[in-house]
Amino acid sequence: MARIFADRMSCVHKSFVREILKVTEDPEIISFAGGLPNPRYFPVQEVAAATQKVLSECGEAALQYSTTEGYFPLRELIARRYAKQGLRVSPDEILITNGSQQGLDLLAKAFLNKGDSVILERPTYLAAIQSFGLFEPKFHSIPLQEDGIDPEALGETLSKDAAGARLFYSVPNFQNPTGITYSRDKRQAVAEKLEGSGTVFIEDNPYGELRFLGEDMPSMRKYLGEDAVLLGSFSKIVSPGVRLGWVCACEEIMEKLIVAKQASDLHSNYLCQRIVHQYFMDNDIELHIAKIRRAYKDQRDFMVETMEDTFPEDVDFTRPEGGMFLWATLPENMSALDLFNRAIAMKVAFVPGQAFYADGGGSNTMRLNYSNSDNERIGEGIRRLAKAIREKAA
Amino acid sequence: MARIFADRMSCVHKSFVREILKVTEDPEIISFAGGLPNPRYFPVQEVAAATQKVLSECGEAALQYSTTEGYFPLRELIARRYAKQGLRVSPDEILITNGSQQGLDLLAKAFLNKGDSVILERPTYLAAIQSFGLFEPKFHSIPLQEDGIDPEALGETLSKDAAGARLFYSVPNFQNPTGITYSRDKRQAVAEKLEGSGTVFIEDNPYGELRFLGEDMPSMRKYLGEDAVLLGSFSKIVSPGVRLGWVCACEEIMEKLIVAKQASDLHSNYLCQRIVHQYFMDNDIELHIAKIRRAYKDQRDFMVETMEDTFPEDVDFTRPEGGMFLWATLPENMSALDLFNRAIAMKVAFVPGQAFYADGGGSNTMRLNYSNSDNERIGEGIRRLAKAIREKAA
Repeated sequence: MARIFADRMSCVHKSFVREILKVTEDPEIISFAGGLPNPRYFPVQEVAAATQKVLSECGEAALQYSTTEGYFPLRELIARRYAKQGLRVSPDEILITNGSQQGLDLLAKAFLNKGDSVILERPTYLAAIQSFGLFEPKFHSIPLQEDGIDPEALGETLSKDAAGARLFYSVPNFQNPTGITYSRDKRQAVAEKLEGSGTVFIEDNPYGELRFLGEDMPSMRKYLGEDAVLLGSFSKIVSPGVRLGWVCACEEIMEKLIVAKQASDLHSNYLCQRIVHQYFMDNDIELHIAKIRRAYKDQRDFMVETMEDTFPEDVDFTRPEGGMFLWATLPENMSALDLFNRAIAMKVAFVPGQAFYADGGGSNTMRLNYSNSDNERIGEGIRRLAKAIREKAA
Repeated sequence: MARIFADRMSCVHKSFVREILKVTEDPEIISFAGGLPNPRYFPVQEVAAATQKVLSECGEAALQYSTTEGYFPLRELIARRYAKQGLRVSPDEILITNGSQQGLDLLAKAFLNKGDSVILERPTYLAAIQSFGLFEPKFHSIPLQEDGIDPEALGETLSKDAAGARLFYSVPNFQNPTGITYSRDKRQAVAEKLEGSGTVFIEDNPYGELRFLGEDMPSMRKYLGEDAVLLGSFSKIVSPGVRLGWVCACEEIMEKLIVAKQASDLHSNYLCQRIVHQYFMDNDIELHIAKIRRAYKDQRDFMVETMEDTFPEDVDFTRPEGGMFLWATLPENMSALDLFNRAIAMKVAFVPGQAFYADGGGSNTMRLNYSNSDNERIGEGIRRLAKAIREKAA
């Protein structure tokens, strides 16, 4: 008898990007495909020291079951860090998750009935398409411009197709995949369009602290108050291996998220919550983040310069002010998927952009990661890629 | 404007047990309410040593992102442990999860459309009701007898109300909440009733290795093959704080679970996967488990003896052969919820049993945990409880 699965499983497939990453595991390939932070800046010794302290001072407690909400001192610490940005957040508005990705699953559980509308940026973070996709919503994609989405298009969508949209998912700072950041004006304009819509704005901000150029922009919570839910992560500033992120939401929403979290996995990894908290107590995180920022700026600068020197003039690309990715647009008739195959033969990899479009399109776009390579590999990889593009165009 | 949440949120509420646990946080209360392993047997120093080894030998790798499936050597280790039980399992049939609770969420995602039938034991593990409840199934509860569910009742339900049930959730060894274990005959009979039904049998087995009396029973996979999905956990044999469990399922089901896991949270905590693997490499887990077993047997024996000496004769209770819980049935007209309030006033706590009934009932039942108390507290707590019951009966 053929096994019958739930309908939702036909809406979601294995991540294309994760499948691509398998192709690029060959160590000879210079890969700009992944979305990995640079492990050179993982605080390995500091994490080791924090672990010893936690286990020797309160090992039995740190290895026991814990609360669904998460370790309270860690939630206080997150609230204090928001306060530094001028956001008033109570620790009770913070829920610790298994990476910020889990926040998407919990929000989908709390908000989405089958067929409900979800607004996405176009292109958007692939894993968000997957995460929401399991709940069988209707997606509406709003084109990204250089400094955020087009507010007019948002207004139109909200007044027609996506009236009553439950969620708007956004990465306003150094977006994955494009590296684009919303300007102050765009933030204001988006907030105005959302007013009274009942749509919850999800501000996913894993890269926000990795700004190396320009000035910090206000969180959408400043404009939208309780209609903004914030997702944060320790993956980019401490390390992905501790697998911890958080959701910040007002009490009314938080109550539902806690119920969803209890049902999903009871609570997040408690040992790592204690370790990360101890790490913050014993180290100057700002110094550490500054080190990462300097390194990523250097890598980003070198990638941009090499692209300017070697890429054909009809290839456009973003110049991000932070984060880990930049985004290139090939001439309209050039398929990034075809280019990918040629590039792999030349031992260089990237992610073809179409995976990031919930509604198709983007076949001439590509995502390049600069955080996880040194300048030598960036230079060599970009030169190979330029060669592949020129050959393809010829 | 009132915020609108998804329909599923009205099917699930904050865990009653977790709310009760808050009441029992008062250190003067002797609590048999929790479901905690005894922290005295957490391998704190060994986990500390394993962490140091992992971080000093491959710290950058252990702190990076990882695969959805989980750390391969850990999955091999789990497969080898199944082999010792006579089960042939490939590491590719193992997915590492955030505690085995997450396995329920992933299985619900893979199998349940709204309104699909799910078969439960009566009573059953509360968090399973919650976890499946989010996917709005129809529950069918099969009464538990002394040695497993009633196969006739299962057969009848499968042929009528629950025809085409997608999942049957069971804890066949030292069940939470009752401590009951399925006999060999019951396993066989249940498997026969399920044959050809298309129902997937979920064998949740967090306590299986904590048998201190009698002989090990065969896994339902022996009878059902690929129609059995196994859930396992490191929480009871290593510690809950590492927050790691697994799902063991055939390839066809595993493919869907991996998609669901990617969408839910990308992957499980990688640092802790490495730590647990290292812990197994450097320590004799069988010796460690034997120590836990001896301790829990001693605690269980003392609780049973004290109950036999002090409880009124019309209170029935189970004598589990392993695990962490026993289950008491009060006289039919005595409310365990009322008794709970009286008991709290006398500084002793348990979980009123009705929370474990998906379809109501069980108002005169209670769950008692013996793993997380020493004999002094067990003796004193049971005497107080006996007094409360006698006062209530008077």
